Amino acid sequence: MALVVQKYGGSSVSDARSIKRVAKRIAEAKRAGNDVVVVVSAMGDTTDELLDLAADISPRPPQREMDILLTAGERISMSLLAMAIDKLGVKAKSFTGQQAGLLTDAVHGKARIVDVVPHRIRQTLEKGQVAIVAGFQGVSSGNDVTTLGRGGSDTTAVALAAGLDADVCEIYTDVDGIFTADPRIAPGARKIDKVTYEEMLELAASGAKVLALRAVEYARRYQVPVHVRSSFSGKNGTLVKGTHGDLIDPNASSEEQEEAAMEDPIISGVAHDRSEAKITIVGVPDTLGQAARIFEVVAAAGTNIDMIVQNVSAADTGLTDISFTLPHADIRSTTAALNAVKSELKFDDLQVDDEIGKVSLVGAGMKSHPGISARLFGALRDAGINIEMISTSEIRISVVTRADNLDDAVRAIHTAFELDSAEGEAVVYAGTGR
Amino acid sequence: MALVVQKYGGSSVSDARSIKRVAKRIAEAKRAGNDVVVVVSAMGDTTDELLDLAADISPRPPQREMDILLTAGERISMSLLAMAIDKLGVKAKSFTGQQAGLLTDAVHGKARIVDVVPHRIRQTLEKGQVAIVAGFQGVSSGNDVTTLGRGGSDTTAVALAAGLDADVCEIYTDVDGIFTADPRIAPGARKIDKVTYEEMLELAASGAKVLALRAVEYARRYQVPVHVRSSFSGKNGTLVKGTHGDLIDPNASSEEQEEAAMEDPIISGVAHDRSEAKITIVGVPDTLGQAARIFEVVAAAGTNIDMIVQNVSAADTGLTDISFTLPHADIRSTTAALNAVKSELKFDDLQVDDEIGKVSLVGAGMKSHPGISARLFGALRDAGINIEMISTSEIRISVVTRADNLDDAVRAIHTAFELDSAEGEAVVYAGTGR
Repeated sequence: MALVVQKYGGSSVSDARSIKRVAKRIAEAKRAGNDVVVVVSAMGDTTDELLDLAADISPRPPQREMDILLTAGERISMSLLAMAIDKLGVKAKSFTGQQAGLLTDAVHGKARIVDVVPHRIRQTLEKGQVAIVAGFQGVSSGNDVTTLGRGGSDTTAVALAAGLDADVCEIYTDVDGIFTADPRIAPGARKIDKVTYEEMLELAASGAKVLALRAVEYARRYQVPVHVRSSFSGKNGTLVKGTHGDLIDPNASSEEQEEAAMEDPIISGVAHDRSEAKITIVGVPDTLGQAARIFEVVAAAGTNIDMIVQNVSAADTGLTDISFTLPHADIRSTTAALNAVKSELKFDDLQVDDEIGKVSLVGAGMKSHPGISARLFGALRDAGINIEMISTSEIRISVVTRADNLDDAVRAIHTAFELDSAEGEAVVYAGTGR
Repeated sequence: MALVVQKYGGSSVSDARSIKRVAKRIAEAKRAGNDVVVVVSAMGDTTDELLDLAADISPRPPQREMDILLTAGERISMSLLAMAIDKLGVKAKSFTGQQAGLLTDAVHGKARIVDVVPHRIRQTLEKGQVAIVAGFQGVSSGNDVTTLGRGGSDTTAVALAAGLDADVCEIYTDVDGIFTADPRIAPGARKIDKVTYEEMLELAASGAKVLALRAVEYARRYQVPVHVRSSFSGKNGTLVKGTHGDLIDPNASSEEQEEAAMEDPIISGVAHDRSEAKITIVGVPDTLGQAARIFEVVAAAGTNIDMIVQNVSAADTGLTDISFTLPHADIRSTTAALNAVKSELKFDDLQVDDEIGKVSLVGAGMKSHPGISARLFGALRDAGINIEMISTSEIRISVVTRADNLDDAVRAIHTAFELDSAEGEAVVYAGTGR
């Protein structure tokens, strides 16, 4: 008998019919002999409707009240889901974040989980009942309702799985799993059967939307196996687990070890991101501490920057240009913050470019295989795509292109690394770095 | 500086515009120097929409889950109201029943308040902020969400006013106060300025819908002055307070006492109720304990019966008929319960009559004034209306008529007791029992 945490997103519980379908799936898991805990998001468009209501009332509502408002959504979906399961003859009880013991700090709108104390969930399981838990929400030490922000429900599920020492955390979604690229862009993209936490982190950070970055971080820290799968089929999805080389037996011969390592794919996939823009600060005096001061100002504005490029300064003027990428949503506050200190920083101009795209190649295997960058840059050159910025980590290479070129870039890289499936079926890529 | 508890019903907060209007009113009360606690119901049709959703999922959903579902409504209205007040520059915080310290028993769907521990509300007031509290809900000792059932928000407001020792509990509604009759039926009906708890209890129990019976009971027990008034105007409404003869100074001369007592109106008003039906059990053997057994069965079915009439038994058969009134909603369960024991009770037939109406005359003054019943029956006779059942208390006379005759009965009684306002303005009735 396994202890399974299942998470269903808003699209899986968008109306009464889909709630009944999900209830059937949960009842089956329970009847198969598992202990089942379910984390559920708000129904379909509920959150957007509540946001609209708030916008009608106030342009800048207090965040504490926004959290109370938005958590009404999960209250509705979780109680309806419990009713639907009960109707199938399986006892189920729903719990708010507070009741489930999701303790957070008091930062409304983006609270962090500080502890998980799931006494009531354990009691419910011991009684042989299914526990339904509201995703996305918790309670602060002052007994105020908090929300976890973006990706909150995935994080709730993983945190509960860790707190309950669950065997697996299943994230149900409307796609079959994590793909080697977005199939809408790269038709040959195929489902990845298994990916390490590190690779999943890089994929999520690079724009893959199926699993929230925060949930992956949490899963890695507590070594929670996460199974990303479709709520519309019974097929296995993608298992996020372990580290690269897990297949290697440390007592095996070096030849066997090498062979085992070769069974891990070098490349996991190609992610893309359209959510960023580029700001270029033109004509900055190239003096000591200038860049530090600029990024102090940007950080104080609450902006998460991603990539930074500084040009070589022109010898005759001693001026340089500094470019960085940031989320579209932060453009306004960041330019305002920089313009406010224009006379101190002595730059000429700020240029905003919101027509960029970022494509990233991720694979834990690439760190031991040379020539990956060269192959990637070559593929883009052959496709006639100009590279504007580059950043790398040990297991990721990202480049910024024109937004119009992004889809072509994804396809070119996906093909260059032989990720395309011949017949659209899931073949495990086990290339050798050629 | 006064401590005021204000309660706004669903029709007062049906959309963003009305929420802003209510917020303005609350901000004014706060700026006038009062400590303000606001109890709010769910927006307009929210509760009905949630009930529809539940009905789509299950015909008999678990009541615990219904309570979680329905309380989402107040969560939405209370946070939006807090945002709207904040936007006017007045700090406001919203609280769930649990956060506000509304402790109840665990009877989901119709929980009773067992204690009110409003620490956080007091703290909020001490900080000079407005506290918004979700009506209709509380928390059980097991930390489960409960709802108070019908009239729950009025009850929350009165209970909080009692717990906070408030100066007044203002119930805002869409009419100007309590009227001597429903103005849609009796156009001459006028607003009552002041009514005692006892009279208000009888009016509420007899069908007056403006204030919930339970809230009046609570207010009487804790002597909370309740001011029922319109959220659409600044006019005074109806003050529910004290007992009949409050104006009498016990140290005054008997002549002065008599004069003071005469200033209290004899009759408060005429209430009507269309929500009841009549069941007649035909041909019951008129033996000892038979009636007791019948009403045991009815009580076990959870039915609240109102009036009972037993005919004189026919000498030749030894059989009698027993009629009683009950809410429409209870007809099905009650007839099922009685038919299940038909062979034991040995009755011939059950007749259900759902075409009845009940009209009630209420007034604390009537107990010291003879001839009230005679005048009432005379008025109905003159209007050609047949009386089917009668019940009385010290300060109320109720009669059952055909449903078609109910409006005529209300008007005839209202006129006979000189309750009609000459010019539609609020004149205090101070008749002397003639």
